[in-house]
Amino acid sequence: MEEIVAGIDIGGTNTTIGLVNESGRVLTKNGLKTKQFPDVNQFVETAAQLIQEQVHSMKNEMSEVNLKGVGIGAPNANPYKGTIENAPNLSWQGIVPLAELFAKKLNTICKITNDAKAAALGEMQFGAAKGMKDFLVITLGTGLGSGIVANGSLIYGYDGFAGELGHVIVVPGGRKCGCGRNGCLETYVSATGLVRTYLELNPHDAEAPSARVIAERAQTGETHAIEAYRRTGEMLGFSLANSVAYTSPEAIFLFGGLIRAGELLFKPTRDSFDENLLNNYKGHIHIYPSALHESDAAVLGAASILWNS
Amino acid sequence: MEEIVAGIDIGGTNTTIGLVNESGRVLTKNGLKTKQFPDVNQFVETAAQLIQEQVHSMKNEMSEVNLKGVGIGAPNANPYKGTIENAPNLSWQGIVPLAELFAKKLNTICKITNDAKAAALGEMQFGAAKGMKDFLVITLGTGLGSGIVANGSLIYGYDGFAGELGHVIVVPGGRKCGCGRNGCLETYVSATGLVRTYLELNPHDAEAPSARVIAERAQTGETHAIEAYRRTGEMLGFSLANSVAYTSPEAIFLFGGLIRAGELLFKPTRDSFDENLLNNYKGHIHIYPSALHESDAAVLGAASILWNS
Repeated sequence: MEEIVAGIDIGGTNTTIGLVNESGRVLTKNGLKTKQFPDVNQFVETAAQLIQEQVHSMKNEMSEVNLKGVGIGAPNANPYKGTIENAPNLSWQGIVPLAELFAKKLNTICKITNDAKAAALGEMQFGAAKGMKDFLVITLGTGLGSGIVANGSLIYGYDGFAGELGHVIVVPGGRKCGCGRNGCLETYVSATGLVRTYLELNPHDAEAPSARVIAERAQTGETHAIEAYRRTGEMLGFSLANSVAYTSPEAIFLFGGLIRAGELLFKPTRDSFDENLLNNYKGHIHIYPSALHESDAAVLGAASILWNS
Repeated sequence: MEEIVAGIDIGGTNTTIGLVNESGRVLTKNGLKTKQFPDVNQFVETAAQLIQEQVHSMKNEMSEVNLKGVGIGAPNANPYKGTIENAPNLSWQGIVPLAELFAKKLNTICKITNDAKAAALGEMQFGAAKGMKDFLVITLGTGLGSGIVANGSLIYGYDGFAGELGHVIVVPGGRKCGCGRNGCLETYVSATGLVRTYLELNPHDAEAPSARVIAERAQTGETHAIEAYRRTGEMLGFSLANSVAYTSPEAIFLFGGLIRAGELLFKPTRDSFDENLLNNYKGHIHIYPSALHESDAAVLGAASILWNS
């Protein structure tokens, strides 16, 4: 009998659902538009139906399949309570008991965590952090998220909201952040932070280009574009060097859309990391791109919440 | 039969040795001058003899006593290897296999960690962090040390050197630090950091007063002295707010000589902490003084390495 887990990655725009086996193969994958479901019950109804269809289609191919549970990666997830709490980018307001809704609907266990913590669990279970007991995963998308593993366990913290590295203040009195404070790391190091830096360097640009467009311009040699990536990497490397002083990881993995820029981002990051690192730590901590295939990573991460538990 | 542990706190100047029972009572205590033993073997010989004498005197009082092991808190300790490595403040050069030396001498188990990690274990075993799974201990002495507990376990990190919060860079290009870099937290927040701040405010002071003298001057209303503590607390509170983003602790405990200044330090620390904390975390994280009696704390901390293992 094959044991499988359903991984659900919920984003503000899209939700991806896949079935994952214990060796980390994504067996089936399907999507729906999160925004089309202002009522969370209808969302759960539809997503559960997709999972059941996927399980059913697998049963046609194999003798026996057992759905071990459902793992969900979602913004503003409280892993202790199984809830999504006041998520600004989702239309479901207040505190939503999402894990309970899925568990009841599918009569199975359901666990939930935020997307960056799911990414860390995915990297540990199926990616390049296999066998590591102390590492960091930094997700670089619209914002900056992080998952911290120490002593072989993901750190959730007292309230379940550990790992908010995007909201470490790196420039007191610096850029205005969505959290209401100033100078948070993600206002500098993220897709939106990169765009802000680029527009500061190039204030005459009529419209804000995307991080991807800035990367393309950098590849063609545009000075401001190269400098925007350099400054982003410089700030990231500095912050990672400071982060090492907390948990002394074996490795740091970068994940998410921004890392598609490759060495444009990695080189200044590593240079600044090496320059700012305490001597004790020098030489043995490497910064790698995530080893998970980008299109599968979010579903693998979500599924790994169950495989890790 | 009473089980006991010997706790050894090794400092650059003094070493304290005590026997501790499982409920955290320091049954006997004795000291020696670390600097009188340039040869580590003679140090171990003498310290082991003191332990044996203490155990022997207890046997006279009780029917049966069993020495469960030896726990050592020492600077530059590598908990994984049981060694002290290149400690600048000790006369033993290079890599000293201290745990092994004691284990052989006393035919028992011996574990070693740095003093800040020992303080965190002591607080968890015998102090105010009893029953907590996520907390920080910050030691404020000549430097700034820290012990981070998450998921109920002390974080040692990949190499055993996690928790170097004193060397998080808080002011890029700031004060010169003993580690060779600039702007490390402990150059601002520590007894020496406080004195530096005081002398910046009051450059005409003929000789550098101690942190204790500055506290006395603040109590008599001296403006520069009050301001030096205020700035120290402000920087500490800011850094603790940033630290929360990593492990989301339930509480933060301050420990060490500097906390004798009481509200002079705690008030600006809490004010700055509250001001800089991410909204998510507000309201439930408290900053407390350590609950361990200062004269026993180091020995209790060292002993708790064994009681926790």
